[in-house]
Amino acid sequence: MTVRNSVRPRAAAAIDNYDFEADVLVVGYGAAGASAAFEAARAGARVLVVDRAGGAGGASALSGGEIYLGGGTPVQRACGFADTAEDMAAFLTAALGPSADPAKIAEYCAGSVEHFQWLVDRGVPFKPSLWDAPTWVPPTDDGLMWLGENSWPFTELATPAPRGHRPTANDFGGKLLMECLTEAAESAGAEALFDTYVTNLIVAENNTVVGVVARRYGKELTIRAHRGVVLTTGGFVDNDAMLADHAPQLLGHTKVSAGTDDGSGIRMAQALGAAVRHMGAGQVGMSLIPGLAARGMVVNARGQRFMNEDTYPGRIGQAALYRQNMGGAWAGDDTAVWVIVDETGFEDVPEPQRWGVQPTHVGETPEELEQLTGLPTGSLVDTVLRYNELAARGDDLDFHKSPRWLRPLTSPLAAIDVKAGVRPPSEAGDRRGTGASVFTLGGLHTDLDGHVLDVNGDRIGGLFAAGRAANGLHGFGYISGTSLGDGTFFGRRAGAAAAEKPRDDQGR
Amino acid sequence: MTVRNSVRPRAAAAIDNYDFEADVLVVGYGAAGASAAFEAARAGARVLVVDRAGGAGGASALSGGEIYLGGGTPVQRACGFADTAEDMAAFLTAALGPSADPAKIAEYCAGSVEHFQWLVDRGVPFKPSLWDAPTWVPPTDDGLMWLGENSWPFTELATPAPRGHRPTANDFGGKLLMECLTEAAESAGAEALFDTYVTNLIVAENNTVVGVVARRYGKELTIRAHRGVVLTTGGFVDNDAMLADHAPQLLGHTKVSAGTDDGSGIRMAQALGAAVRHMGAGQVGMSLIPGLAARGMVVNARGQRFMNEDTYPGRIGQAALYRQNMGGAWAGDDTAVWVIVDETGFEDVPEPQRWGVQPTHVGETPEELEQLTGLPTGSLVDTVLRYNELAARGDDLDFHKSPRWLRPLTSPLAAIDVKAGVRPPSEAGDRRGTGASVFTLGGLHTDLDGHVLDVNGDRIGGLFAAGRAANGLHGFGYISGTSLGDGTFFGRRAGAAAAEKPRDDQGR
Repeated sequence: MTVRNSVRPRAAAAIDNYDFEADVLVVGYGAAGASAAFEAARAGARVLVVDRAGGAGGASALSGGEIYLGGGTPVQRACGFADTAEDMAAFLTAALGPSADPAKIAEYCAGSVEHFQWLVDRGVPFKPSLWDAPTWVPPTDDGLMWLGENSWPFTELATPAPRGHRPTANDFGGKLLMECLTEAAESAGAEALFDTYVTNLIVAENNTVVGVVARRYGKELTIRAHRGVVLTTGGFVDNDAMLADHAPQLLGHTKVSAGTDDGSGIRMAQALGAAVRHMGAGQVGMSLIPGLAARGMVVNARGQRFMNEDTYPGRIGQAALYRQNMGGAWAGDDTAVWVIVDETGFEDVPEPQRWGVQPTHVGETPEELEQLTGLPTGSLVDTVLRYNELAARGDDLDFHKSPRWLRPLTSPLAAIDVKAGVRPPSEAGDRRGTGASVFTLGGLHTDLDGHVLDVNGDRIGGLFAAGRAANGLHGFGYISGTSLGDGTFFGRRAGAAAAEKPRDDQGR
Repeated sequence: MTVRNSVRPRAAAAIDNYDFEADVLVVGYGAAGASAAFEAARAGARVLVVDRAGGAGGASALSGGEIYLGGGTPVQRACGFADTAEDMAAFLTAALGPSADPAKIAEYCAGSVEHFQWLVDRGVPFKPSLWDAPTWVPPTDDGLMWLGENSWPFTELATPAPRGHRPTANDFGGKLLMECLTEAAESAGAEALFDTYVTNLIVAENNTVVGVVARRYGKELTIRAHRGVVLTTGGFVDNDAMLADHAPQLLGHTKVSAGTDDGSGIRMAQALGAAVRHMGAGQVGMSLIPGLAARGMVVNARGQRFMNEDTYPGRIGQAALYRQNMGGAWAGDDTAVWVIVDETGFEDVPEPQRWGVQPTHVGETPEELEQLTGLPTGSLVDTVLRYNELAARGDDLDFHKSPRWLRPLTSPLAAIDVKAGVRPPSEAGDRRGTGASVFTLGGLHTDLDGHVLDVNGDRIGGLFAAGRAANGLHGFGYISGTSLGDGTFFGRRAGAAAAEKPRDDQGR
């Protein structure tokens, strides 16, 4: 889908009347929007949330619902982890870099225990038990999971503690999370208008945003926002033209979205001179079973390992796509990525946790597997030999996988083609793909209160952003839970700041 | 240097008088600016070129002067190469991707022979002889050189032909090139104003750019442009805040610029809602001697090879920095990159072409060299063994280096630390560095005539851009000569288009 609708701002002087009015207008009713709406309404503002879909939810409702929290939450303490905000910040600075936002990370980590309580107070349940192995989504209802904190290099940078907090749900937690947040926003008094696609910002003479133009059932309507507009319109993974301009490596992969992440909010703000950051960054949900990868090796098209396989699987995915050219965005490079595992490793992962994955090839010897996979002659044989030497000495000198997961591989060996694709059984749709499911991390540059900044670093009056319409905490790295995490955390800030803003008298 | 000057546009209505006037105002007097000024003046426009420095030249004058030209130039034909625009386009599409601009590449390749003649007509000399080995800069005055066209994967995508055209000069050709282009612009009637730093665009009610505000000797002055403003202000490698927002991998390395690539033109246009593209992309001039690399191996911190060593060395540099984390932008990864070569390979490169590079370590055996370099035990030994096997069979199964450069390495072996740094003797300054010299490729989105486009894809009235202020041909890849190439080629287009634009009557 290529979207190039005109996002040129409209002059307030040219608007004759407004169809709707609010103090705070929130555009987009996902996790960030609901959090902003709740806080604005709780502060006494008249709040209207609009969404282009027929109801609330957005991409948040389709997600696993993990939220990155720490610094000593009750769930962490119940599981025996005495975490600190400092360790959390040190981990995030490394994992979300390069160029993660130090001020936002510090604020986020210092406020994390309070934010956990805020979520609990909104009715989000977290079971105080730990899932203790690499995974995308635990097969249990455990409320706490590792997201790479106990893997190299992070073990050398901060005291490890698991910080992935999962709402207790029968299936993916995102739907439950959104039910809680939507209910909270509505109870606080926020009103909602659906099937409403915001197309343009309305701007007063003094460059303050005072409302929006939207389309609803084919008709244009106008909405006045007396205190502020909060953009929580999501990222731009559904806009191929924007991907080509900013993150072409993400083109052609499965898009993790509700189909509406067209970057409209980012573009509307850019048309006003707003700054963007890290537009090339993306999360890469790679189609591998983390438990199998941890028990074996992940190799590129040259049969080389390239990362410790026990880390957060999104890091392996980012490395595969951006560094090993898994998607073939760069000319020439072959694009295969393989998980190599032996029978013990395969059987060690219970069948339901394998999500139906079967070996693409099985070789009685490394030589045979090498031939079956088409890897360069001798390459996989060498890599297996070296891996087994390192495993035997219990020290992965090359990539520092934890000794817990190091064990010499014995033939027969299986190779699983990551590009053959695998997704959780709970996800609908085609289970074969490119090997990657992606969304964008780049977006608007905001300050700690969610104000959108222009290319001078100055606030644009009346304009706020949160969620993936903003870049948030992120540099070029990503850890699961930081998107719902910074969306809800800084969404709250944006809603509160917008509610506090004096009513302007710039619009009519 | 962090630059956050206010680039907010000024309203034409607020400008009482203009200190200077021109039909076409060119901002920046490098290769793109001079080319634009020449064509605008030749078309009859009154042209003023302003530059913040005390004279013309910019980063172009400090460069090697290579220009990427093909499709059957007289120099190519004299050297025996029957090139075509189609082969040239196929190569550039692959080499400058992902997401290189297909329309600009097609136009550039179709017009390349004419552009060669235009340069010759401006007095730029090219000697019709070929330097036939990988290098940054030939040690001779040969006018033609390979820039990776004869290396994998390009050999499989297009008929190879050398397309690096070098002005014949005693030293780097950039200075000579700029002398020719400046002389041409002046002879055509363009006037120049130096020590003049443009800070803001002046914009009329109808959003057309009608002039600029500048600082000169501490005083503010205004310049009226009746037909158009052409931004040729360069990239943003000198602006660390912009690098952090867009291309943090480039932070901390030697900046290839005249010290004035602060992104001011890009930011001034963004403040008007201009679109940018590929802001994360960068050229990486890696501190290795291409002749030594081609005769040996380049390995990462795990002792692994990662690219065919006989390709354009900038490709190895990009891979080292963006994929192998040579600069250490990502947490944890070690950052070493080594060139491994034997005595035969070392001596095979004449001493003057080694630019004073000495082995960092010499080992009597691969084992000893591995210990000296601190590479993981067994890693380099394995890689040398495999390389020698592939060389013996004359087929680099892993990275497809040409058989011409494949030869088993014999001990003793030398390791050269790329981070120890090396630069051409002709370049001034510190010869030690981070191993990389970089500049940015991202910039304003322009159309084929150099009009700056806004985030809707519409032209911004009266505003043009060329050179590294624009993204030009480039996706995320780079080939030497495409920067001076698209700067001069599309600089001409921008100058001609600005001169043709009807005089506006929007400014006073």
